[in-house]
Amino acid sequence: MLHVEHFLKDGERLDDLHRNGYKIIQDPKKFCFGMDAALLSGFAKVHKGQRHLDLCSGNGVIPILLSAKSKGDSFAGLEIQEEMVDMARRSIAFNELCGRVEMFHGDVKQAPFSPAKFDVITANPPYVAVGHGAKSPATAKAIARHEILCTLEDVIAAASRLLVSNGSFYMVHRPSRLPEIFVLFEKYKLAAKILRLVQAKTSTAPNMLLVAATKSGGAHLKTQPNLIIYEENGKYTKEVREIYYE
Amino acid sequence: MLHVEHFLKDGERLDDLHRNGYKIIQDPKKFCFGMDAALLSGFAKVHKGQRHLDLCSGNGVIPILLSAKSKGDSFAGLEIQEEMVDMARRSIAFNELCGRVEMFHGDVKQAPFSPAKFDVITANPPYVAVGHGAKSPATAKAIARHEILCTLEDVIAAASRLLVSNGSFYMVHRPSRLPEIFVLFEKYKLAAKILRLVQAKTSTAPNMLLVAATKSGGAHLKTQPNLIIYEENGKYTKEVREIYYE
Repeated sequence: MLHVEHFLKDGERLDDLHRNGYKIIQDPKKFCFGMDAALLSGFAKVHKGQRHLDLCSGNGVIPILLSAKSKGDSFAGLEIQEEMVDMARRSIAFNELCGRVEMFHGDVKQAPFSPAKFDVITANPPYVAVGHGAKSPATAKAIARHEILCTLEDVIAAASRLLVSNGSFYMVHRPSRLPEIFVLFEKYKLAAKILRLVQAKTSTAPNMLLVAATKSGGAHLKTQPNLIIYEENGKYTKEVREIYYE
Repeated sequence: MLHVEHFLKDGERLDDLHRNGYKIIQDPKKFCFGMDAALLSGFAKVHKGQRHLDLCSGNGVIPILLSAKSKGDSFAGLEIQEEMVDMARRSIAFNELCGRVEMFHGDVKQAPFSPAKFDVITANPPYVAVGHGAKSPATAKAIARHEILCTLEDVIAAASRLLVSNGSFYMVHRPSRLPEIFVLFEKYKLAAKILRLVQAKTSTAPNMLLVAATKSGGAHLKTQPNLIIYEENGKYTKEVREIYYE
């Protein structure tokens, strides 16, 4: 039997992922996954036999969730912060996912993988461009939010290099970065296939986007109906409840 | 007093623009303006004293509508098809707008204007890329819909050349072309500022987009709430009624 106290360090807690009974180790002072990671795990498709990699993987929430939601062959995360890697590895062990999910320590700019190694790549990268927004010191939280250790271009370049031909890339980001995303897709030979804007309520402006691209292939973007997070009464919409709980 | 029969040719009709009593000459066999032109005229802003140009102007509906909706100094259209130019000029004369609205005959690739001549440029260009979709013979309708005589790149290049520094470009297009639009904006030094997706009903996927950019300037895209055309009962939404009738 697993004893929680063997897995948790000071300040950490164990949260329910509402999938397969899986739990995730989080630390509110360092990193807790947000709505964006949950939505990305609902948007990305990993098919039977496919090898998946998550860039800027934090505490590994996306590979762990995708291992529960899909029939992929293997799930991996790449994370630059050692304490996040350690947290993710303990979550993987706690959920008895060793062998199916693996967390790697490394920099997306020098990702420790051979080219064209993955069929599906996901990324929930830092949103705020260098030089924008109030930059806090390089704490774990700041590194997850600001492009301190990697830029949007680093992430897209890595995805392109590591994907097989016709492999799929799924990313969550902010709408304000969309022009840059499409310019970088063009530069790194990713063809945008699906765009979905996300907004809090039906009346509010989109504040998140989900985008899918394939390595090479012709560009013909399909735009999906916007994903709405909350009903007018403040409860999650049916679609978000399904992503989180079903 | 104006006599309609002096202005109309065979097959043409005079439609109400619901603004200032203005009318527009249309020919269902050649060109009638659509929802896209109406939405673009509601999206584009021409401020007091500004000079406006509409590319791929067809029967001139956009400069005529903008002359009614805004306090701009002058409104112009550029159109390659001589019979459309003739139709637009007769609409301008019928509405007694000579001197305020002018229609030019010419090709966007060799637009007959000096660089940096306009403060605001609009475009409702042909949507369908060369080699895509069922191409009809080069009739007036086909030229308005397919990139037979000008491409998206021709339009964006012309807008960039003809805009003053910090001038504004407004375009309506299809969501499937969004990646290309942003790549071309980057190439021709236009900074995307506003994106608004348009969808028929709340439950349907977006099928049109409105995008605003400025010549030079920093890119920080704002995404507006999607514009919905129809209520569930099939009637126009309040916002669309205001664009059309108020």
